[in-house]
Parts: sequence; structure tokens; C-alpha cells
Amino acid sequence: MIVVHVYIHVKPGCEEAFRRASEENASQSVKEPGIVRFDVLQQSDDPARFVLVEIYRDAAAPGLHKETAHYKKWRDAVESMMAEPRKSAKYTNVYPSDHEWR
Amino acid sequence: MIVVHVYIHVKPGCEEAFRRASEENASQSVKEPGIVRFDVLQQSDDPARFVLVEIYRDAAAPGLHKETAHYKKWRDAVESMMAEPRKSAKYTNVYPSDHEWR
Repeated sequence: MIVVHVYIHVKPGCEEAFRRASEENASQSVKEPGIVRFDVLQQSDDPARFVLVEIYRDAAAPGLHKETAHYKKWRDAVESMMAEPRKSAKYTNVYPSDHEWR
Repeated sequence: MIVVHVYIHVKPGCEEAFRRASEENASQSVKEPGIVRFDVLQQSDDPARFVLVEIYRDAAAPGLHKETAHYKKWRDAVESMMAEPRKSAKYTNVYPSDHEWR
């Protein structure tokens, strides 16, 4: 699997709008064949910070995701909400193994 | 859900031993009733960095996890592998909702 964590910091007052836009995007993203999971997390001690936990089946899947209508809608909707540029980190799974992932 | 991300940086040469110890701990941890997921991820551009993605059902579960034999075995095994102290961040789930989590 290809695991991507996207770290997001939104401007004050944008928390709820970001939650709504990201929930909609995630619920569509999990229907893509190349996406195993697409979790949206909000930091407990700083609600202006979020992490997207994206699990892709293969190297082609992240690019295909960025071509979808729901991704583009999300990207445009949240653009003005960012307090700073998004950062991301890429990981591979040690556990569970690819065939055990759910 | 209570989501905890634990950021780990191991000393050079400890990557494989850390993988093995963490895989064993994770495979036992997912059997705990309070644990939904326990993923071990290795950073693609720096294999000495790992993230544990721990999903707990309730506030009691993290404490119960730390009392298990497998956690204590892992904690002691990896103690000398750390390049710096572990850091963690706590999150709540925006998506999926608690009843949709798998």
C-alpha cells in the first residue's frame, strides 16, 4: 500500500466548513477502486489542525484521485481556508500486510 | 474513536529490529477489545522514521493497552533503538463516523 498523511492547518473559524468539505470528499474517495481508506482526523488539542490518512492500492491511484470531480471540488473549496501550505508524508505499511489491510 | 499517532525515529541500523518488534506488538494489540486498528507505517523517504496509527474505541482503551504483556515487551525491546524521544498527537475522527469505522 501507499499511505499518505496530509497535514492541514486551517484559519480560525474555518474548522466546521473544512470538516464538511472533507467529509464529503472522503465519502466519495472511498468509492474509488484504488483507494482503500480515506480518513479525516481533527487534532484534539488544536481543532484547527487536521490529518488526512489516505491509503492507496498502487502507485497510479493517487494521480487518478486528483483527477476526480470530488477531489477538485474539495481542493477549490478549501483553498481559501488554509492557514499555511499543506504538508504531506508518504509511508509504506509494516503492519498490516497488503493482503490483511481492510 | 480516539486516534493516536505516535512518531518514532530510530537509530541507524535499528530499522529492521524495530519493524519486527512493532509488527509483533501490533498483531497482538488488534486482538484487544478496545483497539479497532493498530497500523505500523515506515516513512518512504526516511526508513528510520515510523508512525504508529492507533485507533481506540474509548477513553479507557489506551490505558488498558499499556498494561498488556505485549505492549511492555515492545516498550522494553525498542527502548534502546530510539534516536530521540517518541512524540504523539491525539485526534478524533471526522470521517468515517464511529459506527462506520472498520
